[in-house]
Amino acid sequence: MRPTPIISTTVHRLKNGEMTREEASVIVEEPLAILVDGVHYAVTMRTPGDDLALAAGFCLAEGLIDASDDIGSIQACDCEGKHEVSLARLGDRPEPQRRARHAVASSCGLRGRALIADMVKQIPPIESTTRMRVSEILSLGGHLRQSQELFVPTGGTHAVALFDASLTLLSIAEDVGRHNAFDKAVGRLLLDRNLSNAEIAMLSGRCNFEMAQKAARAGMAILASVSAPTQLAIDFAQSAGIALIGFVREETLTVYHDAGRVFV
Amino acid sequence: MRPTPIISTTVHRLKNGEMTREEASVIVEEPLAILVDGVHYAVTMRTPGDDLALAAGFCLAEGLIDASDDIGSIQACDCEGKHEVSLARLGDRPEPQRRARHAVASSCGLRGRALIADMVKQIPPIESTTRMRVSEILSLGGHLRQSQELFVPTGGTHAVALFDASLTLLSIAEDVGRHNAFDKAVGRLLLDRNLSNAEIAMLSGRCNFEMAQKAARAGMAILASVSAPTQLAIDFAQSAGIALIGFVREETLTVYHDAGRVFV
Repeated sequence: MRPTPIISTTVHRLKNGEMTREEASVIVEEPLAILVDGVHYAVTMRTPGDDLALAAGFCLAEGLIDASDDIGSIQACDCEGKHEVSLARLGDRPEPQRRARHAVASSCGLRGRALIADMVKQIPPIESTTRMRVSEILSLGGHLRQSQELFVPTGGTHAVALFDASLTLLSIAEDVGRHNAFDKAVGRLLLDRNLSNAEIAMLSGRCNFEMAQKAARAGMAILASVSAPTQLAIDFAQSAGIALIGFVREETLTVYHDAGRVFV
Repeated sequence: MRPTPIISTTVHRLKNGEMTREEASVIVEEPLAILVDGVHYAVTMRTPGDDLALAAGFCLAEGLIDASDDIGSIQACDCEGKHEVSLARLGDRPEPQRRARHAVASSCGLRGRALIADMVKQIPPIESTTRMRVSEILSLGGHLRQSQELFVPTGGTHAVALFDASLTLLSIAEDVGRHNAFDKAVGRLLLDRNLSNAEIAMLSGRCNFEMAQKAARAGMAILASVSAPTQLAIDFAQSAGIALIGFVREETLTVYHDAGRVFV
């Protein structure tokens, strides 16, 4: 059984004008080093758990691998308090460079449109006939809310859930970082050789460029979030042919780009 | 006059079971390259505006500079659609290395406690006699909520506000990235040579290790947030002598570490 990444700590809570001493649940955050072909590629601050999935999903998002078959081996090392995942790739691939601050670092100084065009070129166009009713998107939002096991006690995590075209939940992950949650949800399917069935991603948080980019790399046809998208995420979704929906609440949502995939 | 970093876009909104075509406000997200002593140091995805402040605050958080006096020159370049800030440092300082994914990259593989100990060593202990009533912290939370000009129309930003010991608002910033919002709020005071008066930071979002680290680098005595802290943020605040308060709402809050600075 996996240990729960939650600790209990003593706090003082103000309520009705009085401070009371209580125990509170707090989400754990720790560094994980990701090594690719022996190179220290990146360190991410993450919630422990699903580390292999996190590393696999991260490498897919980064363009270091393109599919399950590109993974030669993947293993975690937690010895001596070190948390590392080592991923070795198959085939003839350029040596990984230690990663700069953001995925777009290599495009620095490009204007937004050029940046998007550049990114889209690297991403196979989304080929999917998946379409969804807006009522179905609302139901996936409800599904996500009910599945946030770490969020309920701690309030400190974001979640990402992936579904197939028939709305079956394939994978869900929670993490202190929403980018990690996306990588974990994708990475688990990648390791299970089941990513090609995933079509729809539902996010608990805001949808920025990085999240839209991860969705494209993972082949999502529909990207929905309970919160706001940024302008760059919308532009990117339009270019990549991904339907983008925001503010998915109990009975309302906003379609920013339907990509011919959303209907009433 | 600075252009507002909000664009209008046509969306379809579901409400009362019907889709209606509407105009929606969306927050702008664009890359900004930060050059330090001529070296391309990092690219951050940010909301345009306060770029000089963002770069200055970022360099302080990174430990590239320690005070206003370390900045020899700072200038923005928006020519040809490129968005860059170049900061040149005074004095004899090690050459900046292009930044790895996270501030902790150089400590990768360290266990949490060692990581914190390592970080705290690099940070001057917070020397401040500032103390606050819990009712005052609640009022700062209200202040922040009322000041989120970009959040109200877009729902896509986080905010950070900095106050002095007499609860006067010194600086406030909003951005698609909460780390950018912190850097902007701090950087503006750094450029105005007024950072030493700031004692209290109020965040609209969750407080993770990175945010606690930025607070320490900026010399904050009290760090409050309307949302959850992570376990590592709490550990770090304890080590650095920073009072850490979470879930600051209308009438409730939770004190995770009072550092002798919070009273009823």
